[in-house]
Amino acid sequence: MRSGLRFGRIPITNIQPVLEGGRFPAKGVRGADVRVSAVVFREGHDALGVTAILIAPDGSEVQRTRLKPGAKGTDSWEGVLTPAHEGDWSFAIEGWSDLYGTWAHNATVKINAGVDVEVMLAEGVLLLSDAAKAAKATAPEAATVFKKAAHTVADSSLNINDRLAAGTSAAVRAAVVHFPLRDLVTRSESFPLKVERDAAGRGAWYEFFPRSEGAIRHPETGEFTSGNFRTAARRLPAVAAMGFDVIYLPPIHPIGKVNRKGPNNSLTAGPADPGSPWAIGSAEGGHDAIHPELGSFADFDAFVAAAHDQNLEVALDLALQCAPDHPWATAHPEWFTTRVDGTIAYAENPPKKYQDIYPLNFDNDPVGLSEEILRIVRLWIEHGVRIFRVDNPHTKPVWFWEWLIGTINTERPDIVFLAEAFTRPAMMAALGRAGFQQSYSYFTWRNTKEELEEYLVHVSGESAGYFRPNFFVNTPDILTEYLQYGGPAAFKIRAILAAMGSPLWGMYAGFELFEHVARPGSEENIDNEKYEYKNRDFAGAEAQNKSLAPFVTLLNGIRRAHPALLDLQNLTLHESSDPATLVFSKHKNIAATADEPARKDTIIVVINVDPHSMREGEVTLDLDALELDGLSGDGTFRVDELITGASWNWSKKNYFRLDAHFEPAHILHVRG
Amino acid sequence: MRSGLRFGRIPITNIQPVLEGGRFPAKGVRGADVRVSAVVFREGHDALGVTAILIAPDGSEVQRTRLKPGAKGTDSWEGVLTPAHEGDWSFAIEGWSDLYGTWAHNATVKINAGVDVEVMLAEGVLLLSDAAKAAKATAPEAATVFKKAAHTVADSSLNINDRLAAGTSAAVRAAVVHFPLRDLVTRSESFPLKVERDAAGRGAWYEFFPRSEGAIRHPETGEFTSGNFRTAARRLPAVAAMGFDVIYLPPIHPIGKVNRKGPNNSLTAGPADPGSPWAIGSAEGGHDAIHPELGSFADFDAFVAAAHDQNLEVALDLALQCAPDHPWATAHPEWFTTRVDGTIAYAENPPKKYQDIYPLNFDNDPVGLSEEILRIVRLWIEHGVRIFRVDNPHTKPVWFWEWLIGTINTERPDIVFLAEAFTRPAMMAALGRAGFQQSYSYFTWRNTKEELEEYLVHVSGESAGYFRPNFFVNTPDILTEYLQYGGPAAFKIRAILAAMGSPLWGMYAGFELFEHVARPGSEENIDNEKYEYKNRDFAGAEAQNKSLAPFVTLLNGIRRAHPALLDLQNLTLHESSDPATLVFSKHKNIAATADEPARKDTIIVVINVDPHSMREGEVTLDLDALELDGLSGDGTFRVDELITGASWNWSKKNYFRLDAHFEPAHILHVRG
Repeated sequence: MRSGLRFGRIPITNIQPVLEGGRFPAKGVRGADVRVSAVVFREGHDALGVTAILIAPDGSEVQRTRLKPGAKGTDSWEGVLTPAHEGDWSFAIEGWSDLYGTWAHNATVKINAGVDVEVMLAEGVLLLSDAAKAAKATAPEAATVFKKAAHTVADSSLNINDRLAAGTSAAVRAAVVHFPLRDLVTRSESFPLKVERDAAGRGAWYEFFPRSEGAIRHPETGEFTSGNFRTAARRLPAVAAMGFDVIYLPPIHPIGKVNRKGPNNSLTAGPADPGSPWAIGSAEGGHDAIHPELGSFADFDAFVAAAHDQNLEVALDLALQCAPDHPWATAHPEWFTTRVDGTIAYAENPPKKYQDIYPLNFDNDPVGLSEEILRIVRLWIEHGVRIFRVDNPHTKPVWFWEWLIGTINTERPDIVFLAEAFTRPAMMAALGRAGFQQSYSYFTWRNTKEELEEYLVHVSGESAGYFRPNFFVNTPDILTEYLQYGGPAAFKIRAILAAMGSPLWGMYAGFELFEHVARPGSEENIDNEKYEYKNRDFAGAEAQNKSLAPFVTLLNGIRRAHPALLDLQNLTLHESSDPATLVFSKHKNIAATADEPARKDTIIVVINVDPHSMREGEVTLDLDALELDGLSGDGTFRVDELITGASWNWSKKNYFRLDAHFEPAHILHVRG
Repeated sequence: MRSGLRFGRIPITNIQPVLEGGRFPAKGVRGADVRVSAVVFREGHDALGVTAILIAPDGSEVQRTRLKPGAKGTDSWEGVLTPAHEGDWSFAIEGWSDLYGTWAHNATVKINAGVDVEVMLAEGVLLLSDAAKAAKATAPEAATVFKKAAHTVADSSLNINDRLAAGTSAAVRAAVVHFPLRDLVTRSESFPLKVERDAAGRGAWYEFFPRSEGAIRHPETGEFTSGNFRTAARRLPAVAAMGFDVIYLPPIHPIGKVNRKGPNNSLTAGPADPGSPWAIGSAEGGHDAIHPELGSFADFDAFVAAAHDQNLEVALDLALQCAPDHPWATAHPEWFTTRVDGTIAYAENPPKKYQDIYPLNFDNDPVGLSEEILRIVRLWIEHGVRIFRVDNPHTKPVWFWEWLIGTINTERPDIVFLAEAFTRPAMMAALGRAGFQQSYSYFTWRNTKEELEEYLVHVSGESAGYFRPNFFVNTPDILTEYLQYGGPAAFKIRAILAAMGSPLWGMYAGFELFEHVARPGSEENIDNEKYEYKNRDFAGAEAQNKSLAPFVTLLNGIRRAHPALLDLQNLTLHESSDPATLVFSKHKNIAATADEPARKDTIIVVINVDPHSMREGEVTLDLDALELDGLSGDGTFRVDELITGASWNWSKKNYFRLDAHFEPAHILHVRG
């Protein structure tokens, strides 16, 4: 080779996951498989080997994985790397001439055709002898295999086929996996991989309004006494019992009184209407204050402690917008847009205006405003908040998020930000690159088999390096037509899809009660909790068998028992003959620990996504993707159905019958 | 903004054409339009402007083009830049807040809804007054327009609609095009664009074997006296008269005598068989020698001079492989692969062996071998060769091409290399990045409407930044089934597709005589010229109306008259109702020169690609892509048919009837 060239001896291109040439790190989670791939090729016909190398934050190489060829003709190579802990990791790709692979292929083809027989055998002897010498120090077992094979291949008293067979035996092939015979080794540059804690990429979220939990309705007036942190904390054990990991609270700050919205988003609020928690700020304070009816900072701290006692993390809303009576409006008018008539501009989508909200303007005083927001975020971190659900991040400049999240994560890498962005793909992707650990997603509106297949493949593949989707099944802003009109089966189907399809999923209180009536013409609950108190009788519904809570508990339990469900990039689609039945699997190889041997975890989900019908048909499995240890003599393997507790023999093709009104899905665990 | 961030105020991503983050330059040709695009977006609803900036080799900004929005929801922006001359150019993208666009949109929507009427008008007055001041020095005409508009918008004696109309008039919009009202201007980094001479990306190639041109067959023996450079030069005026730009010669070096191939690739050659020119080297010399029967270096120089007199460039074959009797085989066995038995390895694709060829091995002595090849290339450059057609570059390491072409082009940027690579996409793309100016392509095997549509879109779009396809219609190695069985109509159709569809096209001698008989079971001519002399009676065929030469002359004439046909990235598909009729257009805006005003050149090709039938149907044109100056009152525009000389009124929808046996295509020029 000559120096100063961009192409190495073996060209290596299109390495994934690489974001903008490595300017941004790809995202990973502690212990989660990261799919890596590259296009690697060479001149001529000789065999090629490709290896992915995982480099720990301290610079040590901790994993080398031989990649497998991708789709025919693409020259792509694929595999997984698994960073074990948090930190700034990196990875690289090596391409190399596979001396053994080349010889074994050519020798087999030529000797079978009677061409160059002795020369090919002699070359095999030379290759295997050299390999035996080279392997001696570091791979003595392989060296022994090579040496023995060389002897047999060299033995001209044997017949040709036996000599060839000795050179291409399973033992030699296995030895070559441990000690590949490599030449022309070419290494790519290294690319960054930011590995974060579990909460960045795994977890089940539950959202409630603390003012509703423990709120008391006075039968005579119909008015409420607000719930507060102390009363809301009483609900935490039930949330934890359902298996959730995160309790997310809408904004807890004082709510604006000027232009406050009334029930059902009406323009005028009555004196007893509590207003929207997202209209932040009043004379009682702004983003650094707590709504007086919810309690004090001490009450908040107690709530956080109570959550931690239940192994729940508290996620706080970060909604960077202000009610007209927010203290900033008078103290810092430069943080807003002032019109030519001297007034501050309301939020608007012309000609619509939102007169209870002033949006922030980051261009007049970017340093002053961003430092103030940093101060506020740090304040809540000091009070035990490690997760922020960020409201509408796509209405703020992207640079601001890169700066804020970068600054916070430099001092506290454990802080997680969830982007509530529903907008075009370019902005969704940019927020992920800017640092958001996770994002709300379009899952809510993917309902048919085709839509779900496309979406699951996209989020577990192409976009997984920069975008971790949180599959919320509903929110105070989203009650889809599917849920409005699908009956209880629809709620069950969506919960299964979210909990099994994504390592991050979320639910807003009331989902388990099948709340499905929308404000006419909208995709939101009627009498929306954003503008009202809600009193829900969770226990009563459960007693009457009118709650999804036990099923949600089952789903979250299955997630905790099956690590494959808590990885993002390990999803495979399978075929079903029915146009409404979706089939996917999640598969993970789990390395041995001090206590347990290596094992595989594999879940297959077969789900009827039409909430109105019974479906039957045939599933055809991609058995390669399941990496089974082997099939029985009759071509079957054993699965345990985790909803009903049944156990079956399954094979490549399997009949199913799923009635949405009874059990819309099979969740199958492949027995190891 | 805060410092040290990767996101600018306005995010700019996915800039095209950018190869591997700018590590390789995108390809351009002097005066050819380069399509540029980027994904540019911002928070919120305000209007955005995007500008592409072209930077000349001396660092000066020579063109600023406002980009247009691409497909809805993608946030992509598209346009063209046109570098005027050869050199190392670059380009950048600017995104900016479009103050006027935001105001005009919001003012129109809100005033029509009766919201904020006076505030919106007052904001317009402020914006236009500020613009008038800012534009005064550099754009005085725009300043006058802004000032006048501000006055009218401010005039409260007028009615609201007239005031709004004054602020959003065509005059104001035109002034804003010249002097955009920009805020938050954000500039990307710059990306390289290597602009090369015409021959790199434009031209019609003709291939002949000089030994055949003027070869004399002795009627008694059937043996030939070889043609040579002197006799071959006599054919050059006819080649030039057909409108070709390049005369390409297969290897002109001594041909190996060891294991020489006979007629039809037979394993044994008779004493009079001339052998394949690609089996290079004998006792008479190697790649730096000339076959004695072709003549001396003086004869070659005379041939080159004769070609130049006809405005033809000579392209030489660079086939880096050796016959067993090539001088290198004894002088430099380290440049080959030696087997364990001490012999040099033949070329092979196991179990097949090609015993007339030794492939080179670049790994034993990379410096020595590459320097020797560099010496050889320089030798032929000294003898007037400026174009090399490289045989099988994908069987040599990619780094070697990066080094060779980089070294040559540093001293001689005018030298052009054509890659004869038919292999998988990764290698095809790598050879383009490595420096090959152009490549043979899969055009030959794209025959149906669907195949051609997909291929034309791919090569004129996605891959154009690194891959310039040369649409050869045939070669000594390629006589497709389409030509074997399609009759004369097939030859005509393929010539039209190549000459009109690509700025680079090529033809191997005999195509104009409809030579269509293949060696059975192959896609090559029977009695292939690779192994034999050929005597062709071009003039006789033409006299009998049995030659395509006059039609080829017409096609090349149309190309020279229409610059739109000599750009690669300006192709648009249009719809036709017939499944065998393909419709595409090529369009170019030609800047004014000292002698001529600016003009547009637009060609529409409607072609029946089924050589066996008559087709009729309706063409539906994408009128936007044609950028017509306007339609007549009846919605028509005037086109001249360049094959028959007819003139018609065309409109958005047009009837066609194309009989493959008569004229399979319309080539329409849109009258300016």
